[in-house]
Amino acid sequence: MDLLSVDSLSDEQIADLLNSAQTFAEQVGSSGQLGGKVVFNTFYENSTRTAMSFATAAARLGAQPITLSVEHSSVRKGETLADTAATLAAMRPDAIVLRHRDNGAPAEVAGIVNCPVINAGDGTNEHPTQALLDALTLRQQFGRLEGLVVAIVGDIRHSRVARSNAKLLRRLGATVRQAGPPALLPDDVGGGDIEQAIADADAVMMLRVQRERMADELGDAPGEYLSRYGLTEERLALAAPHAVVLHPGPMNRGVEIADPVADGARSLIRRQVANGVSVRMAVLEMLVA
Amino acid sequence: MDLLSVDSLSDEQIADLLNSAQTFAEQVGSSGQLGGKVVFNTFYENSTRTAMSFATAAARLGAQPITLSVEHSSVRKGETLADTAATLAAMRPDAIVLRHRDNGAPAEVAGIVNCPVINAGDGTNEHPTQALLDALTLRQQFGRLEGLVVAIVGDIRHSRVARSNAKLLRRLGATVRQAGPPALLPDDVGGGDIEQAIADADAVMMLRVQRERMADELGDAPGEYLSRYGLTEERLALAAPHAVVLHPGPMNRGVEIADPVADGARSLIRRQVANGVSVRMAVLEMLVA
Amino acid sequence: MDLLSVDSLSDEQIADLLNSAQTFAEQVGSSGQLGGKVVFNTFYENSTRTAMSFATAAARLGAQPITLSVEHSSVRKGETLADTAATLAAMRPDAIVLRHRDNGAPAEVAGIVNCPVINAGDGTNEHPTQALLDALTLRQQFGRLEGLVVAIVGDIRHSRVARSNAKLLRRLGATVRQAGPPALLPDDVGGGDIEQAIADADAVMMLRVQRERMADELGDAPGEYLSRYGLTEERLALAAPHAVVLHPGPMNRGVEIADPVADGARSLIRRQVANGVSVRMAVLEMLVA
Repeated sequence: MDLLSVDSLSDEQIADLLNSAQTFAEQVGSSGQLGGKVVFNTFYENSTRTAMSFATAAARLGAQPITLSVEHSSVRKGETLADTAATLAAMRPDAIVLRHRDNGAPAEVAGIVNCPVINAGDGTNEHPTQALLDALTLRQQFGRLEGLVVAIVGDIRHSRVARSNAKLLRRLGATVRQAGPPALLPDDVGGGDIEQAIADADAVMMLRVQRERMADELGDAPGEYLSRYGLTEERLALAAPHAVVLHPGPMNRGVEIADPVADGARSLIRRQVANGVSVRMAVLEMLVA
Repeated sequence: MDLLSVDSLSDEQIADLLNSAQTFAEQVGSSGQLGGKVVFNTFYENSTRTAMSFATAAARLGAQPITLSVEHSSVRKGETLADTAATLAAMRPDAIVLRHRDNGAPAEVAGIVNCPVINAGDGTNEHPTQALLDALTLRQQFGRLEGLVVAIVGDIRHSRVARSNAKLLRRLGATVRQAGPPALLPDDVGGGDIEQAIADADAVMMLRVQRERMADELGDAPGEYLSRYGLTEERLALAAPHAVVLHPGPMNRGVEIADPVADGARSLIRRQVANGVSVRMAVLEMLVA
Repeated sequence: MDLLSVDSLSDEQIADLLNSAQTFAEQVGSSGQLGGKVVFNTFYENSTRTAMSFATAAARLGAQPITLSVEHSSVRKGETLADTAATLAAMRPDAIVLRHRDNGAPAEVAGIVNCPVINAGDGTNEHPTQALLDALTLRQQFGRLEGLVVAIVGDIRHSRVARSNAKLLRRLGATVRQAGPPALLPDDVGGGDIEQAIADADAVMMLRVQRERMADELGDAPGEYLSRYGLTEERLALAAPHAVVLHPGPMNRGVEIADPVADGARSLIRRQVANGVSVRMAVLEMLVA
């Protein structure tokens, strides 16, 4: 079994994963169910948090994470992704975690190899473990996901985080509103007024803005983005009184999120990171054990 | 004991290694004989498959692989190889795996340190674990090496894979023919006509062509190499009916090997990669345990 | 508890660490007291010996080292150190080892996270595990530190090694003399004549000269440095007959140290590296276990 998209998961599997992750979140230290297993951590894009999080999850379970970063890879020698995948699989790892800049790369790899493939983010497509950790974070906060209103705000068009979250949260009964700068909205998302999206929401999930895109597509000076599209205290005041704030990180402080919001009492941003390890433990346990 | 060259091994050790690797190849998962051991994986040249393969082999045996890539090394600070070697050895790893661009670097290091040194490829000199895994792959296929005819084709002059394989396969009773573009043959290898080398061979081992060399020394357009020197289906038809195809990877598809050959039923290229882990487990077990 | 500076340690803790490190130095192989623990090895500056040494120490204790090098980090994406630290800590590692170019970075991180932070060198400030391993090396040699005269020679101004050693060795009863090129001495260190500092010393600790600084601040040709400020056999002859030589590495041979001195019978440079692993095991055991 692979985890390529939140669509790969049945309702029962999602429930099992969230419960198992919750158990891991409450445990201290290691559990060791995967002693002697080897997890390949293959990152074709740089990443601190996701690569470290998967490595930590593997290690906590007693598996050995082996990290391949693109800098050391045969990619430079012109090998195709299919050949690299077949090569990695021939070494018989117990799982391959893959981050890749191209949409669909993990699915291509999963079609070639016979071990579980876990999508750690592919292009603008999906990032299923991020969606699971966000769902866990919201469920811890509210005790449920059913009926919650979640506003996802920012560069919706290019965000694999937004895509996976919109799918998963809706399946779990939440209402998802998406909003952002008009140039950064996909065609199938409506008007997307930010204030409207945030109004009375239970949670506001801000997305990272890529500086390159900000300059190219928005024509904005960095300072302007926050006032036009960012999460300021004023905008957050439009949400429900108990509303919480999420961000997948790394944050551009003063760009898509104001410091007092990032560091405020409503911010669950650190808990998201902690839940990232728990969710990845749950996923590895489900797929590998 | 070090493994610097296939010459470092006695006939009995070669037999033991191949048998032990065969056992590992048939096992699933980890064995753990090296629990608590530390293997330094030092790569002064980029590598996907060999670095991952050694790390996986160490992990499967229960040892901890610790990877040093040249990007993070004191080499940049102008330290000599001898000083780096002495420094690494002073940390008392249980083995040092070394890939280096200079011929003889592993031998230099082995002269300095008092732990086993395993040559993971040095310049144009040797790559003994590659030769062992190729021998294992052929033995699995034919049940023997004695009497086999193996054609090694390509950039013989610069290939450590060719050098180690020619030595080892001949010691094990195979006939080795070497052929390639005239500019890429060493002086001590004869005419080297490719069709003649392949004729009735039991196995054809294609070597990777380095694109830089192709342009500089052969003056060829990339497209031309395949038709003049590569392994096409037509050329492979000259070999014995049961002939198999090997390649150490990463492949330049459409350059030294045609797609239908690389992916055909006679290709053992994936099995080579799988055997790479088994052979390195056997080597680590022999040298470290 | 963190280890940010040698000042973080009580006299009793220093004594415990040195004794515990001595025990590790005498043991062969692994001890495993930290099975299931995860140590983040975060290096914002390149390092061979310190990063490998901490990883080896963690592995020998049975913990899993997970290395983050700046090349793969969100630093490139403009994340603040505080946010990176909070993110790393949220993954609940059992310890964070940190090397950083900025003075005080480990202290900043320690103020944010709730796991032990171990300073692996910060700017020109401190490198406490280096001082501990140097103290252990001298104690092994002389059976005591009380009353020893130690000359630290070189780029005192920019050296975290010099700063940590001067503090620790003085606390342990040694007399520390510091000397070097006038342009590389801090204001609070006196005349600093090299020959005077070395005269009758029990130990001479040479510091690494950074080539960039040599050119910029000293205006010297590389060849000149050795004769003016380096440790030649002639200068070493000024020290006590039983004097030993230390260097934190990597050495610039022929610059701050002459080959016959580096490789001579009085050189404890390799033992320093070996003791580095033992000291880091002792530190990890004290802070994590």
